[in-house]
Amino acid sequence: MTGNGRVVETELRVRYSETDRMGIVYHGAYVSWFEVARTEYCRAAGFPYRRMEDSGLLILVTRVECVYRRPARYDDRVLVRARVTELASRGLAFAYDVLDENGRRLADGASRHVFADVKGRPARAPEEVLEVLERFRGA
Amino acid sequence: MTGNGRVVETELRVRYSETDRMGIVYHGAYVSWFEVARTEYCRAAGFPYRRMEDSGLLILVTRVECVYRRPARYDDRVLVRARVTELASRGLAFAYDVLDENGRRLADGASRHVFADVKGRPARAPEEVLEVLERFRGA
Amino acid sequence: MTGNGRVVETELRVRYSETDRMGIVYHGAYVSWFEVARTEYCRAAGFPYRRMEDSGLLILVTRVECVYRRPARYDDRVLVRARVTELASRGLAFAYDVLDENGRRLADGASRHVFADVKGRPARAPEEVLEVLERFRGA
Amino acid sequence: MTGNGRVVETELRVRYSETDRMGIVYHGAYVSWFEVARTEYCRAAGFPYRRMEDSGLLILVTRVECVYRRPARYDDRVLVRARVTELASRGLAFAYDVLDENGRRLADGASRHVFADVKGRPARAPEEVLEVLERFRGA
Repeated sequence: MTGNGRVVETELRVRYSETDRMGIVYHGAYVSWFEVARTEYCRAAGFPYRRMEDSGLLILVTRVECVYRRPARYDDRVLVRARVTELASRGLAFAYDVLDENGRRLADGASRHVFADVKGRPARAPEEVLEVLERFRGA
Repeated sequence: MTGNGRVVETELRVRYSETDRMGIVYHGAYVSWFEVARTEYCRAAGFPYRRMEDSGLLILVTRVECVYRRPARYDDRVLVRARVTELASRGLAFAYDVLDENGRRLADGASRHVFADVKGRPARAPEEVLEVLERFRGA
Repeated sequence: MTGNGRVVETELRVRYSETDRMGIVYHGAYVSWFEVARTEYCRAAGFPYRRMEDSGLLILVTRVECVYRRPARYDDRVLVRARVTELASRGLAFAYDVLDENGRRLADGASRHVFADVKGRPARAPEEVLEVLERFRGA
Repeated sequence: MTGNGRVVETELRVRYSETDRMGIVYHGAYVSWFEVARTEYCRAAGFPYRRMEDSGLLILVTRVECVYRRPARYDDRVLVRARVTELASRGLAFAYDVLDENGRRLADGASRHVFADVKGRPARAPEEVLEVLERFRGA
């Protein structure tokens, strides 16, 4: 995760349901971990995503990627670090690092998003939301 | 699966994502297989569940159970047999059998449901729906 | 959850991936929450399940059931209470309650399990494991 | 999906469990669809992946990405087209297109993989496997 800006950390415990027959975490699980990390990022910024959504502002995923470096296993504690890498009235982007308990990197990734209204049409985020996110993001 | 009435069969291929570190299908996956079988049952009966839902009639799950007899593995072809065991204006119940390619039983289960409106409040199913389901169910 | 015996509580935050198009938590997600609660129960008892499994003692699920009472939603904090209701050398049983932040019951359920060796064959749990679980369970 | 080479198509029906509270398919589900498409690709090529794995040759995911263009919904039939874009003794890469029933693109993506032995260590694929895949891939 290059660059700078506020990082929000979320700790997760690997669930049995997240493992696969290879004995390690199924690679698709990381995508939902990124989503958990975004939820915690928005909460930390003062805009819980559920509240955004209830107020009619959706954040759609337009792209996600993940690079796998080391496997995680059942019951491991993993740390997901999330950071906003781009922020505009039309959308935003996040970068993620997934670390094990010893700080070794298990995976990293990124996602891109557009703001949308309740019907899923592209929308501009209210100034208030952008200002709060921008201030929180710092850097 | 005791009793009688029309049985609708759905064939599935076990996905890698459905396995767990024990090397077999994660037990929670069967619950979503039951749901796939209900979807196919309603389609076979002439009332695709998506159409029901789009017309404002929801079918909520109020209870589910599953008994596991033999493990299923990645890439196995499994057959889910579904049957309506109860049908009333307030709700209905299904029974399921999950079989392997040789007809051996892997699991069986049951689910109970209530009809609801789009706000999730208990509702009576329209006569038309009940009649079609009753006729399809036969027995 | 009737009866008595030590209860272990696990708090979870509902993930976006756990919701479905009805806007509530997908019913199958509760089954994996029960599993998370079992993991925490074993850890609290002094026998982390991963360690059990690594030592060659598996706990297979032979039956699971869940009764749904109220929906849970994205980002809700839910509490899963787990308790051992039966314990024998061949297997054990758990009961669960899922509560919302106000203590209202969202769901309850139960699961049955048999001990097995690494090849999945029925096995007796070592005396040491049974004694520790029995003492922890109390009642 | 640019470039050429044999394309293997897999048809899927969207499951209720794959939707989220936005009313559309959860973005993480596409990652497991890619995996289903890889399974079918290997089967079509004459090397069912399960057989590869049982013979000691694992294919680890080292990178996955997905670009989302249009939402898919519950009960939609979707077509996943998979193609091998790189093939070497150390690993391979796939590209994917996800189409709706009218041939409109819903998403596209790619994944990279390394061959590994049963302990997860990097390995070279046997010549036989590479030759069969290369011939199948054609182009």
